[in-house]
Amino acid sequence: MDRRKFIKLTSSAGAAIALAKIAAVGATESKKQAPVVTKDSADQQHMDAMQQYAELTGGAKLTIGMLVYPGMFLQDLVGPLAVFESLMNRDIHLVWKDINPVGNEKPEHPVLIPIKPTTTFKDCPKNLDVLFVPGGVPGTFTIMEDPEVLMFLAEQSKTARYITSVCTGSLILGAAGLLNGYKATSHWSTLDVLSELGAIPTKERIVVDRNRITGGGVTAGIDFGLKIASLLRNENYAKAVQLYLEYNPEPPFDAGTPEKAPKEVAQFLNDMFSGMVETAKQTAKRAKKRLS
Amino acid sequence: MDRRKFIKLTSSAGAAIALAKIAAVGATESKKQAPVVTKDSADQQHMDAMQQYAELTGGAKLTIGMLVYPGMFLQDLVGPLAVFESLMNRDIHLVWKDINPVGNEKPEHPVLIPIKPTTTFKDCPKNLDVLFVPGGVPGTFTIMEDPEVLMFLAEQSKTARYITSVCTGSLILGAAGLLNGYKATSHWSTLDVLSELGAIPTKERIVVDRNRITGGGVTAGIDFGLKIASLLRNENYAKAVQLYLEYNPEPPFDAGTPEKAPKEVAQFLNDMFSGMVETAKQTAKRAKKRLS
Repeated sequence: MDRRKFIKLTSSAGAAIALAKIAAVGATESKKQAPVVTKDSADQQHMDAMQQYAELTGGAKLTIGMLVYPGMFLQDLVGPLAVFESLMNRDIHLVWKDINPVGNEKPEHPVLIPIKPTTTFKDCPKNLDVLFVPGGVPGTFTIMEDPEVLMFLAEQSKTARYITSVCTGSLILGAAGLLNGYKATSHWSTLDVLSELGAIPTKERIVVDRNRITGGGVTAGIDFGLKIASLLRNENYAKAVQLYLEYNPEPPFDAGTPEKAPKEVAQFLNDMFSGMVETAKQTAKRAKKRLS
Repeated sequence: MDRRKFIKLTSSAGAAIALAKIAAVGATESKKQAPVVTKDSADQQHMDAMQQYAELTGGAKLTIGMLVYPGMFLQDLVGPLAVFESLMNRDIHLVWKDINPVGNEKPEHPVLIPIKPTTTFKDCPKNLDVLFVPGGVPGTFTIMEDPEVLMFLAEQSKTARYITSVCTGSLILGAAGLLNGYKATSHWSTLDVLSELGAIPTKERIVVDRNRITGGGVTAGIDFGLKIASLLRNENYAKAVQLYLEYNPEPPFDAGTPEKAPKEVAQFLNDMFSGMVETAKQTAKRAKKRLS
């Protein structure tokens, strides 16, 4: 490749747009979409760029479906989304019952950032490469008993390549009957609740069991996203995304698990969460009963 | 404190709501708001909870202003926001020229999640505890030459306690004349551009110089947020937030800086970014000229 041409290609519009352009050309390997015909010399430059960095830019078209719902925790969604959006040649759907913004159903607890779904359950494509469920309490508990959502997840799971969650999203997967006999993780506070749903609670940041991939609490979504990126593309591709997102974490404190946190801090959150955990257990028991 | 009462307090509504309730009571220490009068026994229970965990729940009312703008990178905003929202007794404003959603000004490059500002520049409170600017290319470059935004930032900086940014947001602070003579960081790709704006490029994940606090690229926003939380409250409080968000990062790969990434991966992103970096430099030069 002529490197100067590649630089020119990316010079005006910024990296994000350049990535998007290359992504469009990357569709030539798509299993779901006809090859994109190059129309002009700019497209030819993209093809040249593709050739040098094929390992870091190529790959079949990906279709990713991310559930959004009232009461979810925004970072649970946005962490994996930041990774998925950094992949080229992909469609991402934010899926819900309808396309009205979710988040402000309870005027007494308004959220700062309501999310407008892009796609309804009915219109969501089948054969998703990734089916993803974020967590967020107390929204999780409502969804664990929402037949329309559980049916959507169960149906999509039949054709999805990876069935995934972050944080308490695993309780929703479990309530849909999708973690029975699978190792899985959740937010540390609700890890044990997974056993009520037939899953095998596994205390790891990212748990991969066959095609189920679950991440720990909230911020685990970035680690989780990069793991999935490596499976969807390859390890060097995931590393390119990691560098793009400058994911070289340096937490100013080392208190991210109950074992590492000061005793008083862990006790505070255990006290704070204890009622929530009890609600999670009762909800999980009812969900399991419905499944059997 | 009667621990059973505290558990009862948090049993039905989940942690987020419990936190919010305690937050409301936490306003007793507020410098900006009259003490909240306890009205019933539930409030008394909150007060009891406050007493045991005063270090982890107390503190004066905080007012945080976060700039949002077309072309920002969502994770840059949401990482710090996840931390700030986990603090009790705070108001958070998403600030822009008007309250129309930002993100879809260019129909040819639609974003998945447009953000609706909550507060206009005109209505934004003074004396912010935190003034925050996210990054995101190419949106950053437009903002670096937008007099209305730069004037807002310069004006707010006169009364803000901490003046902060993540990723390329530091270029915007610099263009507003707010980093002259200050150590600061940015996304690794634009770190050197800071010198064009009179700042001292400093290769650290979080850079604190007097009341300027800047974070590195994208995902640095979580580390950055926790650092700020510790300054606004105390270290144990920040650790409680870290545990709440389960921030115990375990990246599946170690490629988050150009030095750590495979050579081919770093070269790819350097090539990809080279045009963008040149644009950043030229934009910074013009901004500096206007300031002088």
